[in-house]
Amino acid sequence: MFFASDNAGPAHPQVMERVIAANTDHAMPYGNDPIMDEVRAEIRRVFEAPDAAVYLVATGTAANALALACYCQPWQTVFCSEVAHIQEDECNAPEFYAGAAKLTVIPTQDKMTPEGLQAAIAARSPDDVHSAQRGPVSITQVTERGSVHTLDELRALTDVAKAHSVPVHMDGARFANATEALNCTPAEMTWKLGVDVVSFGGTKNGCMGVEAVVFFDPTKAWEFELRRKRGAHLFSKHRFLSAQMAGYLQDDLWRETARQANANAAYLAEGLRKAGAAFLHKPDANMLFPRFPRAIHRKLHEVGAKYYLWDGPLDGPEDSLLAARMVCDWSISKERIDQFLSHF
Amino acid sequence: MFFASDNAGPAHPQVMERVIAANTDHAMPYGNDPIMDEVRAEIRRVFEAPDAAVYLVATGTAANALALACYCQPWQTVFCSEVAHIQEDECNAPEFYAGAAKLTVIPTQDKMTPEGLQAAIAARSPDDVHSAQRGPVSITQVTERGSVHTLDELRALTDVAKAHSVPVHMDGARFANATEALNCTPAEMTWKLGVDVVSFGGTKNGCMGVEAVVFFDPTKAWEFELRRKRGAHLFSKHRFLSAQMAGYLQDDLWRETARQANANAAYLAEGLRKAGAAFLHKPDANMLFPRFPRAIHRKLHEVGAKYYLWDGPLDGPEDSLLAARMVCDWSISKERIDQFLSHF
Amino acid sequence: MFFASDNAGPAHPQVMERVIAANTDHAMPYGNDPIMDEVRAEIRRVFEAPDAAVYLVATGTAANALALACYCQPWQTVFCSEVAHIQEDECNAPEFYAGAAKLTVIPTQDKMTPEGLQAAIAARSPDDVHSAQRGPVSITQVTERGSVHTLDELRALTDVAKAHSVPVHMDGARFANATEALNCTPAEMTWKLGVDVVSFGGTKNGCMGVEAVVFFDPTKAWEFELRRKRGAHLFSKHRFLSAQMAGYLQDDLWRETARQANANAAYLAEGLRKAGAAFLHKPDANMLFPRFPRAIHRKLHEVGAKYYLWDGPLDGPEDSLLAARMVCDWSISKERIDQFLSHF
Amino acid sequence: MFFASDNAGPAHPQVMERVIAANTDHAMPYGNDPIMDEVRAEIRRVFEAPDAAVYLVATGTAANALALACYCQPWQTVFCSEVAHIQEDECNAPEFYAGAAKLTVIPTQDKMTPEGLQAAIAARSPDDVHSAQRGPVSITQVTERGSVHTLDELRALTDVAKAHSVPVHMDGARFANATEALNCTPAEMTWKLGVDVVSFGGTKNGCMGVEAVVFFDPTKAWEFELRRKRGAHLFSKHRFLSAQMAGYLQDDLWRETARQANANAAYLAEGLRKAGAAFLHKPDANMLFPRFPRAIHRKLHEVGAKYYLWDGPLDGPEDSLLAARMVCDWSISKERIDQFLSHF
Repeated sequence: MFFASDNAGPAHPQVMERVIAANTDHAMPYGNDPIMDEVRAEIRRVFEAPDAAVYLVATGTAANALALACYCQPWQTVFCSEVAHIQEDECNAPEFYAGAAKLTVIPTQDKMTPEGLQAAIAARSPDDVHSAQRGPVSITQVTERGSVHTLDELRALTDVAKAHSVPVHMDGARFANATEALNCTPAEMTWKLGVDVVSFGGTKNGCMGVEAVVFFDPTKAWEFELRRKRGAHLFSKHRFLSAQMAGYLQDDLWRETARQANANAAYLAEGLRKAGAAFLHKPDANMLFPRFPRAIHRKLHEVGAKYYLWDGPLDGPEDSLLAARMVCDWSISKERIDQFLSHF
Repeated sequence: MFFASDNAGPAHPQVMERVIAANTDHAMPYGNDPIMDEVRAEIRRVFEAPDAAVYLVATGTAANALALACYCQPWQTVFCSEVAHIQEDECNAPEFYAGAAKLTVIPTQDKMTPEGLQAAIAARSPDDVHSAQRGPVSITQVTERGSVHTLDELRALTDVAKAHSVPVHMDGARFANATEALNCTPAEMTWKLGVDVVSFGGTKNGCMGVEAVVFFDPTKAWEFELRRKRGAHLFSKHRFLSAQMAGYLQDDLWRETARQANANAAYLAEGLRKAGAAFLHKPDANMLFPRFPRAIHRKLHEVGAKYYLWDGPLDGPEDSLLAARMVCDWSISKERIDQFLSHF
Repeated sequence: MFFASDNAGPAHPQVMERVIAANTDHAMPYGNDPIMDEVRAEIRRVFEAPDAAVYLVATGTAANALALACYCQPWQTVFCSEVAHIQEDECNAPEFYAGAAKLTVIPTQDKMTPEGLQAAIAARSPDDVHSAQRGPVSITQVTERGSVHTLDELRALTDVAKAHSVPVHMDGARFANATEALNCTPAEMTWKLGVDVVSFGGTKNGCMGVEAVVFFDPTKAWEFELRRKRGAHLFSKHRFLSAQMAGYLQDDLWRETARQANANAAYLAEGLRKAGAAFLHKPDANMLFPRFPRAIHRKLHEVGAKYYLWDGPLDGPEDSLLAARMVCDWSISKERIDQFLSHF
Repeated sequence: MFFASDNAGPAHPQVMERVIAANTDHAMPYGNDPIMDEVRAEIRRVFEAPDAAVYLVATGTAANALALACYCQPWQTVFCSEVAHIQEDECNAPEFYAGAAKLTVIPTQDKMTPEGLQAAIAARSPDDVHSAQRGPVSITQVTERGSVHTLDELRALTDVAKAHSVPVHMDGARFANATEALNCTPAEMTWKLGVDVVSFGGTKNGCMGVEAVVFFDPTKAWEFELRRKRGAHLFSKHRFLSAQMAGYLQDDLWRETARQANANAAYLAEGLRKAGAAFLHKPDANMLFPRFPRAIHRKLHEVGAKYYLWDGPLDGPEDSLLAARMVCDWSISKERIDQFLSHF
């Protein structure tokens, strides 16, 4: 009954098989392995972006921080949601990689609003040497509250960015969960809307530890390579990153695992709803914020269920409500979910 | 016939088995997996250092840069060999992680000398606000030229460091090759000589991508954890790093693979010597710099042998001598070496 | 009729006289001039802090950024008001000097509230490696909206800081305007409330360009000296900074000029009030945010009055109200103010 | 008898007069003062560079570090002499401002040689992601050993730089001393040879504290302005920097003071030579490294002469030779020099 995060599940067998298969003889290091050629071609195909520059790193924070740094001068500011992973959970990595740039947060408890973004950008005059200068907008899709921006909502945000001539980054740690929720293509969710660079997550959705950074503008390629090396994120035995991503892309596994994760979450949400739980945020993908009585939380903790308490401690009045953060990955079985729900 | 680097070989089956075995169900992320507990205990045992703080990262550059940063203020300078990996091959990662600190190089084509180190440290007065301040000494063992400092040579260097109260880091990307060459214990080669922190390499010696950073002074632990996260080097599915290192440590595999790599290099060196090659540096471990006629280099390249030309291009007078850099990992077979030598 | 800023007025004759007097023969450079000894002793006396470490720099941004850097690790966050100078007007200098630390803003349009500060600090768990860690609180006194925190209000803020064991910095670019407004001593407004380091401004209040950084904990001294040099803020001909500050401190000139500036602002405010203007913020010191009809703004601009329009352009409906930011320095004459008011 | 440095002398009366004259009424802050317009025009005229971007800062370290940062990416390396001020005396400020870039030193005890520069640049392959990338060359003119590169020597260095397409910075803290020694124009010593940006020193040659940064390529202008602000080097009361520089440029004062300083040094050198002193470096401008018996050093120290001992302590055998570093500024009188020489 592990719902603490989708970053704690196993790798999918198909991913692991490619890793094992890659483990023969010598291979050229540092991204010059032939599997990377396959991965690059495949990602370009998936994104319908034949010129995209494609790179692999091992953590989501590295993908975000390196991608943003390529678009943010040290005297600029990134614009992001108040609850963005880059703002809340990366221990100043974005600032570090961008050479001490600032993060400006758009007030929100979930999705960034175009009005909020417009106000934040407008407040930074590009002619004022005293002000942090306008830098990239970073949109988290799926959000950290489990919501998925619709294509129209994304368009509204990228329109604001484009109106001010600032680039757009998408933190897609749960990219696949979003495309499956929206039933759209990767291209529709990114460059067709004006997204310039995307962190395309693998780790949370069936890999051991691999994320792709996809630049739709390939002129950033060499700068990224230098930044990746300087950040100590260039793997010598890179084939083991390539192999994970190759397995992840093969036969659209990435879509399949995301659909499964979303379906698991929907099944769990349905059960919780029936049991009387309300939700802090409408669950769009594979993350839920249900609210239910503390007494049930206690029972669940006693039997070893793993998830985060969101707005209070386990100790307190039995019948008061307490919210949880729960995430389903692809590997959670229906049986485990039923077992979890049986305690309600 | 792959002798280009030990960073391009396969992972050892025992390492891969542990990785596969780790791929079951959910595990606590970010280093809180139970395999890491095993790794920590095992490294403390191997180093005879029950209080050591032990961490894993995925690249050697990350291990070096993060370890050094914990001992180097931004206004200080690291002291290292002119040919050190941190100076030549990490694209300013040490400077980046240490907040724009300086690297001061000790002139040498191989091992750092105590006289050179003494002169470099003495040249930086700790009372002079204009000067970069004295920071850590970084010793590469095995050196980038394939030499192994004897314990006496190391002691001479750490004595200089300690006389000036500066800390000592050991870049042990080929740590195991050195202990096996010296037939000494890890403790004898590190803290018993005054080394404060060591990068204990796994990647080049049988792993996919994992290095341990071992602090003999555990007060650096929390700072390292924050720096690792901020550097985007904290893995969510950390168990896959832990599993590699667990397999590497199990039954002293790390010693066995290093002995094999060193033996492979010795066998190759012997064959080259018999064929008339001289060596730029005496080969102490698993790296060789043999010199032989260009005509033979050409033959070898034609048949697909992989190694680096060291001091000139393939084109040129047939009978002039040209040096190579060759590295043997544990996986090179005697047959491949014989095949290589057959071209002489 | 210059009310655009107090950073644009002349230096006080007494300051200039000391500068001229200092211009004889050679003097030891880099802060070793005898005038600096006098300044140090005098600032210690003024602050009733016999052990304080005292340094001079030439800009307010340097004073703030260097002082904060001594109390903020790169993985920490500074807490400050949403409208603080360090957040809005220093082009990421605080982030730069603090090694890419974060600034966390407390929502407010003027003074920081203890509730806001408490919430912001509490949101950053010191045990969570993913979160920016808790760093210093920076309080701006006088605020960027012209308000002066009372001693009780300051105490409420430092109490929150101390409850979480984080240090406190005071941006005192207009320090003197605040002590005069509160009729309190420097000690009462700083270390007696738990302030650890203060930027004690001179530039806006009668100097050419000099600010003191005063550490009540002298153990920060050597780190500051290294940071100042590394930041390129250590003056060789330091005596010209010392002389300014010596002239500024002599016979309590700093108090006198601040009193004059505050009185000028009060006189202006009174005139504006009589002419029907309202104020966005109650003017406590030497800065005003009056609101009056656009038609009058137009007249004033025509006759060359200098101040900032705060919430709209000069073009627009004649009778609609428009706010201004106006600052009085010590040198503005009553005649100029009367001349200004005559246009209402 | 002050020969410790030219950074410790008084400001020239003509400079001080302009400062005093500038101290009237209000002036637009942050470099928008009318005196800066005059300075900009005058520097463009002096350098025969009508499009040059011209900025003022208050310290030589700021001028160097900010100028270099505009031409050096964080993953690049600056190439400079082993004894350059930026390497030896700026406490890592160049690394700090250039975002943790590396400094690569060309081995020399005085002037950089084209062979040394060629070797250093060639050693950094632009195609190798592991290597620090090629960045700007920084030439110190006058060198830190008091030598002046001839125009041919400069040309040989800039030719190497241009052959590798890297930019050239000139650290001209003693720029005027060099042009007067060479009897050449500023243009001949800079852009006509391919210098891209120059730090044009004022502080050591008659100002209180001001240096100009002159970009012959004006496209760097806005980046410099942002970097200057972010580095906390943008003065609000900028007119006091402008006024110094205006006084320094007026009627070619900068040439006159440099000629005087050089003449003072020549007079001193002649006296020392007659008294039997040898020189470590041929004194080309206003800095000398004479060698004479320790007994005389002792006498000179007893009577209060100020200069640096270069290669040993005052204590030791009376008749052994000891070198000194001595610098003459414009303000040293012939009488003082005679007084100094009378002790030989």
